[in-house]
Amino acid sequence: MKRYRNGEIWDFEHEMPVMGNEVILGLDGGTTSTVCICMPLLPVSDPLPDPLPVLAKAVAGCSNHNSVGEAAARETLEQVMADALAKSGSNRSAVRAVCLAVSGVNHPTDQQRIVKWLREIFPSYVRLYVQNDAVAALASGTLGKLHGCVLIAGTGTIAYGFTEDGREARAAGAGPILGDWGSGYGIAAQALTAVIRAHDGRGPETNLTSSILEKLGLSSADELIGWTYADPSWARIAALVPVVVSCAEAGDEVANKILFESVQELALSVKAVVERLHLCGEDGKDSFPLVMVGGVLEAKKRWDIGNEVINCISKEYPGAVPIRPKVEPAVGAALLARNCYMKEFCKEL
Amino acid sequence: MKRYRNGEIWDFEHEMPVMGNEVILGLDGGTTSTVCICMPLLPVSDPLPDPLPVLAKAVAGCSNHNSVGEAAARETLEQVMADALAKSGSNRSAVRAVCLAVSGVNHPTDQQRIVKWLREIFPSYVRLYVQNDAVAALASGTLGKLHGCVLIAGTGTIAYGFTEDGREARAAGAGPILGDWGSGYGIAAQALTAVIRAHDGRGPETNLTSSILEKLGLSSADELIGWTYADPSWARIAALVPVVVSCAEAGDEVANKILFESVQELALSVKAVVERLHLCGEDGKDSFPLVMVGGVLEAKKRWDIGNEVINCISKEYPGAVPIRPKVEPAVGAALLARNCYMKEFCKEL
Repeated sequence: MKRYRNGEIWDFEHEMPVMGNEVILGLDGGTTSTVCICMPLLPVSDPLPDPLPVLAKAVAGCSNHNSVGEAAARETLEQVMADALAKSGSNRSAVRAVCLAVSGVNHPTDQQRIVKWLREIFPSYVRLYVQNDAVAALASGTLGKLHGCVLIAGTGTIAYGFTEDGREARAAGAGPILGDWGSGYGIAAQALTAVIRAHDGRGPETNLTSSILEKLGLSSADELIGWTYADPSWARIAALVPVVVSCAEAGDEVANKILFESVQELALSVKAVVERLHLCGEDGKDSFPLVMVGGVLEAKKRWDIGNEVINCISKEYPGAVPIRPKVEPAVGAALLARNCYMKEFCKEL
Repeated sequence: MKRYRNGEIWDFEHEMPVMGNEVILGLDGGTTSTVCICMPLLPVSDPLPDPLPVLAKAVAGCSNHNSVGEAAARETLEQVMADALAKSGSNRSAVRAVCLAVSGVNHPTDQQRIVKWLREIFPSYVRLYVQNDAVAALASGTLGKLHGCVLIAGTGTIAYGFTEDGREARAAGAGPILGDWGSGYGIAAQALTAVIRAHDGRGPETNLTSSILEKLGLSSADELIGWTYADPSWARIAALVPVVVSCAEAGDEVANKILFESVQELALSVKAVVERLHLCGEDGKDSFPLVMVGGVLEAKKRWDIGNEVINCISKEYPGAVPIRPKVEPAVGAALLARNCYMKEFCKEL
């Protein structure tokens, strides 16, 4: 096994007594943080225990190679895996499978590159699976099964789907310039725009004006221009979504229109994936999991964007089974690793 | 008068013989270039000669203080004025008025700051006028008169209007995040979005896909995501507008819809300004200049966005007099300087 260049990351393996039981690692690497879960390798024959026996969880910073660069992303991922193993009193020799689900993995070449350096850390018998982070979100709802459609709507949005025979499709996830209008960023940018348009006479008056200006500590809609371009980070703008929801709940028409349109946009992404994969079958009534993840869908307010999206989808596809995952995506990744490992293991028998 | 710190900018004043005639300077400072025009101070009683007697024109880089910083913006503006004076065989002692119309000037504080350092260059009897660059564009159509509405649509878009009694109003000009949808950037971003949506099943097929991919040398719509975020400069994206116009002319429905919507957006900006200033008078039929400026409006194609906007405005305001300026904005700024100077001069008599 690889010794880390400064010898620190894996030093714990020599310093502590180690359990002998086999484990799996699941990683969810997003643009803000990276989570690693260490779980025991559960026998395939048994039903999954509830709650799931998580041995340890470790958290680190961003591991999107597009954001922080390849070297920093690798170091973050390696460190978070070592932390999870150390916390669980285990080490690399106990690992049987790793599922690494990270944002920014879109092409087979991305996967191959990451598998290659993971292989420097783990010996050849360890199964390595590299996926887009949307896949971990799906698996967190299906408890490891790659079937159905996941809709993620946080700062950004993407719909990702898999069929049981291994086909996959995605919709949206192309960022704000390229039309991810149902995302948190999309909702908030529409709200800011509505304020500007009301101010300069292009649009109707809206309570979004006073609510947003108060939230940002500004005194005039003019000042929104400076605020917006001073730091146009997507998450900073998306943080205004709760203000939009509050205004809509209080009856503001402009805010309601923005939220209704975002529901349509989000539902459209799901429909595009369902249609391309024929997830609803020939008669349109087949059952499939519809996993809902992300801050925009978890609002738990009276104006519940997630529920509205589900209503919209269910009308068209009565077989859609909405799931709001009880476990986090990194657990989904771990369960995915377990399922893939078991499948391959059974094939070999 | 100020000696420039390294003594170079104004050295020509000691090195060449100088005409005695009075001149005015007009500057148009945008985000890509800065133009300075030197004109003789024409007597107010005479009609403006055609063509206008431009003594010299000098061109320099960006002078938007938001883009390049205050010091660089000042140096660029000072250099381009010195160049224009040197080329015209004149010098600062002949200058009677300067109109500096630069983008990024939005508040009285911006104006005051710039007037202050201009005053270090020119003695107290020189009249100094500092305006937003949209004002120079208006004046280029009205030949120096501050009355009417100008619509600028290039990479960005803004509508700016003035009444004869000195009130002013603007609409749009808040950048792409805040809803400048009719701009060149807006049109092109909608087109890119349409390609992504057709690709992932959220939108109808469109010829924009093959046309844009061919234009950018890409082989798949997937690659547009990388292309877009590799350098999301607004001008780079706006450069795709001619492709959208070509597709619309060839009958593509998606491209046509994008252009029709941009016409509505641009017309809406003008209407907002006209309404707020009551430019059309009580009965809605008063005459006012509608100056049209910028690449999006000057397409001169079969699908003429500018003409469609004019049609749209004229239906509502029959008194709107569309003007496509024959002179550039810097000339407008020079004529504005002349008019303001003459007005103040006459007041003093």
